[in-house]
Amino acid sequence: MSKLPNSSFLHYLADLADAETLPRYLVDLAVETKVKAGYRFDPVTEADREAEIALRAAIEKEFPDHAVLGEEFGETGGGSDWRWVLDPVDGTRPFICGIPVWGTLIGFTNRGQAEMGMLSQPYIGERFWADTTGAWRQRAGEPQRLRTRSIDTLSDAILHTNSPEHFHGDLKAGFERLNSAVKMTRYGGECYAFAMLAAGRIDLALEPSLQSYDIVALIPIIEKAGGVITRVDGGRAEEGGPVLAAATPSLHRSALDELVRNA
Amino acid sequence: MSKLPNSSFLHYLADLADAETLPRYLVDLAVETKVKAGYRFDPVTEADREAEIALRAAIEKEFPDHAVLGEEFGETGGGSDWRWVLDPVDGTRPFICGIPVWGTLIGFTNRGQAEMGMLSQPYIGERFWADTTGAWRQRAGEPQRLRTRSIDTLSDAILHTNSPEHFHGDLKAGFERLNSAVKMTRYGGECYAFAMLAAGRIDLALEPSLQSYDIVALIPIIEKAGGVITRVDGGRAEEGGPVLAAATPSLHRSALDELVRNA
Repeated sequence: MSKLPNSSFLHYLADLADAETLPRYLVDLAVETKVKAGYRFDPVTEADREAEIALRAAIEKEFPDHAVLGEEFGETGGGSDWRWVLDPVDGTRPFICGIPVWGTLIGFTNRGQAEMGMLSQPYIGERFWADTTGAWRQRAGEPQRLRTRSIDTLSDAILHTNSPEHFHGDLKAGFERLNSAVKMTRYGGECYAFAMLAAGRIDLALEPSLQSYDIVALIPIIEKAGGVITRVDGGRAEEGGPVLAAATPSLHRSALDELVRNA
Repeated sequence: MSKLPNSSFLHYLADLADAETLPRYLVDLAVETKVKAGYRFDPVTEADREAEIALRAAIEKEFPDHAVLGEEFGETGGGSDWRWVLDPVDGTRPFICGIPVWGTLIGFTNRGQAEMGMLSQPYIGERFWADTTGAWRQRAGEPQRLRTRSIDTLSDAILHTNSPEHFHGDLKAGFERLNSAVKMTRYGGECYAFAMLAAGRIDLALEPSLQSYDIVALIPIIEKAGGVITRVDGGRAEEGGPVLAAATPSLHRSALDELVRNA
């Protein structure tokens, strides 16, 4: 049996990514984005690329037989049961805007099912991850176990999504029904909102159009905290698409009912 | 001439507020919000009240002749030229949801005009303030001077507002025109988005319905960083209402033109 990763390796990868993302986040854009000799400095693109290069090198060295899917450099090593799924900067818009709700997402799948995940937010200095022992949050001090809240009805639930403008067609109508049914909807929480669902601060997170690398790392964090996360068609979320996460199974069913109801 | 406050006093007030807000932000809601004998623990309301009590006591002791307007306890000491304008937790919704874009706002006005301001975000451990020396940001290390970005045209500008659903009537039509004209719109940045405008990361911030205590502290931070902030009718923003902040005077004029154009 092959050696498999543990959470120490997830943290090691997050350290490597943080070293590439955080310095570029802190750049003074008022100065640095001046066009110089035709070259426009683009810190988020550089952060994305350099972090993925660092992550791929470390994975290749430690687990040369594993496949890797990354936002920047696509798929390598297909055919392995084990696959790393990487989004070095998830939330390029908040990264650009200086709002620290972006994160580095590092997911790990076994035959297509997400088993481990890491969200690192280096400006806050906070990490959320899941491994065989459960789902965890750590900033300073000891890791705290993540657990979703016991909210079963839509009228008690807090929903997050990035923007109502990202919904179209039937899903737009479904989002509007869900938006009317919940206690509160907030926008713009990005991947940090999914972490807050695992942490028991919000109860529903919905995104209409995710890529695999946007969500794989978050799946075990949600599931091992007690939540449910699927595609809106009810299937597993690892391949992306429209994705709904909920604090409890019954809340998830109720939210799906609103989203797909035929009016 | 009376003694007037300086930035050391602003930081002292922020310390007092942080001591009341941060511990309540970190409460594990999954445990603590259980209804016990008819009492539902409400950390954000407690944070708001306890922080305002602490701020008022400190101001009363140091500047007994100054007026105070606070979100929780209203106006006291009217008639003074100097007035403190306090929002102990601006952004109760992100506070509840665990998204660290809320802040304590401490403003100071002289005959109705905002002269000093403090935004403290204690979870990130970051402060933004303005005094007679300019506008500043500090987290670890030395304070950094804030300055807005040199963006003059809407098509290059990044806009923030909390939710498109907060706009109604003519202002909704105006927001939709502005939203179509800018490079990018993001939602949910709350008071932290105004700080990012001062920091040169975004270029426009618009809110349709602010109270005086939601905006006074932010006015000198925006203005002393080089930005422009007014009501949508062009008047000073200290009394609240629909408020627009912009990185430059020409961008502010262009955005106001979109907002108030008669279609």
